[in-house]
Amino acid sequence: MLVVKLGGALGNEAEPVLRALPAHRPCLLVHGGSAEADRLSEALGRPARFLASPTGVVSRYTDAEHLDHVTMAIAGRANTALVARLQRSGVPAVGLSGVDGGLVRARRKEAVRAVLDGRTVHVRDDLSGAIESVNAALLGTLVDAGYVPVVSPPALAADGAVVNVDADRLAARVAVAVHADALLLLTNVPGLLRRVDEPSSLVAEVPSARFEEFLSLAQGRMKKKLLAAHEAAAGGVPRAVIGASQGPDPIGAALGGAGTVVA
Amino acid sequence: MLVVKLGGALGNEAEPVLRALPAHRPCLLVHGGSAEADRLSEALGRPARFLASPTGVVSRYTDAEHLDHVTMAIAGRANTALVARLQRSGVPAVGLSGVDGGLVRARRKEAVRAVLDGRTVHVRDDLSGAIESVNAALLGTLVDAGYVPVVSPPALAADGAVVNVDADRLAARVAVAVHADALLLLTNVPGLLRRVDEPSSLVAEVPSARFEEFLSLAQGRMKKKLLAAHEAAAGGVPRAVIGASQGPDPIGAALGGAGTVVA
Repeated sequence: MLVVKLGGALGNEAEPVLRALPAHRPCLLVHGGSAEADRLSEALGRPARFLASPTGVVSRYTDAEHLDHVTMAIAGRANTALVARLQRSGVPAVGLSGVDGGLVRARRKEAVRAVLDGRTVHVRDDLSGAIESVNAALLGTLVDAGYVPVVSPPALAADGAVVNVDADRLAARVAVAVHADALLLLTNVPGLLRRVDEPSSLVAEVPSARFEEFLSLAQGRMKKKLLAAHEAAAGGVPRAVIGASQGPDPIGAALGGAGTVVA
Repeated sequence: MLVVKLGGALGNEAEPVLRALPAHRPCLLVHGGSAEADRLSEALGRPARFLASPTGVVSRYTDAEHLDHVTMAIAGRANTALVARLQRSGVPAVGLSGVDGGLVRARRKEAVRAVLDGRTVHVRDDLSGAIESVNAALLGTLVDAGYVPVVSPPALAADGAVVNVDADRLAARVAVAVHADALLLLTNVPGLLRRVDEPSSLVAEVPSARFEEFLSLAQGRMKKKLLAAHEAAAGGVPRAVIGASQGPDPIGAALGGAGTVVA
């Protein structure tokens, strides 16, 4: 069993992965879509807002309104488009958010002090969370029946609230839960680069012992991908690769080790 | 097995049905949400448009943009909210649109002559359809595993396009496909009324032989509900009832025959 995380834009840029997918079943697809959610927020006249922690780390402010946009844009629009696209290739895809069947349980973030719109505030209503568990039985039921689950945020908190979760970490937890043979985090760069914009500076391997060193090298989203790949490897997934979503067979290439292999 | 179609508003008005549901498992929930889709279209500054047929029948114009709003508002927002709400009552609900696993296949409407924005046009890009088939195996797989499917539009056309379908007709086709013991179409009125606004004029029974007569009595959405109930009955569902979504146990009441029983 293979878990493929589709990153970057989910329109035409996703085509190479979706075209390759039928040849690599059984598999599971995981996706996010925060850019799509941000575009919807913008179109609705309520652009996404961002929180800066006291140490300067910036994260999206998931208030109830933004979570609603996440749900519509990711679990509604992006997920349905991916499922329909796979059906057109004869792949019996079934879309699931983490809410369905309690598939993904998450712990809501604690209230935090943060800078929002220039003011220091105590944020108590952020609806994002850290993943606690994945209902592997639901995924197994669908896979055993021949379906290809297409999984996306949001997730479900213990109090029944809907919360957003990071899609790379979600892919890692899904891969661990289903005892996947490999987790492929495919994105719009060839893997971890020592120097951004220099594909030749690709890091081919991140051994477990040097994880912290390479983590400090990663910028922005790549940091989450490294954390996710490392989490999968630590959870027993034999192969975790961050690779390119483009090319003739991005899935086969990443499986063969093209990209950054994380142990 | 019971199929419950939740009509009317999907917010607090849905509470009586959702509260009653755990006591009536195994069951399947079906919902639409065209009012929700219209509100989203409005909020995005692209209000829904309507087509009038040469004979004056008015229907929503589902162009690609409106279908996108349907997908986000119904399969994204409304479905996720219902599934999360049921999870809070301990019901392991799983949301599915008709696209998932090819659950609902529909035939795209032919090009039609219609009046749009005051002009007579040949509409070729309407993305709505008539249901052709329901993948009962996918629903059976989930029900057998203990889940409660929560099913909504849109559906999948033969050419792989996503198309909108009527949720009442969808509920009827689902009930026939799973060999349901009953189909309950619950809504914000007590059933078919001889005189709208006069609950005492409720038609308790629509026998098959007098279906056309009662159909001509029905206005607007009630016409589709009657057609759906009749379709279910004709397809072998032993009990098809149009009933109220309010009261202490709207599901038990409709099962007991409160509302309009359609044969």
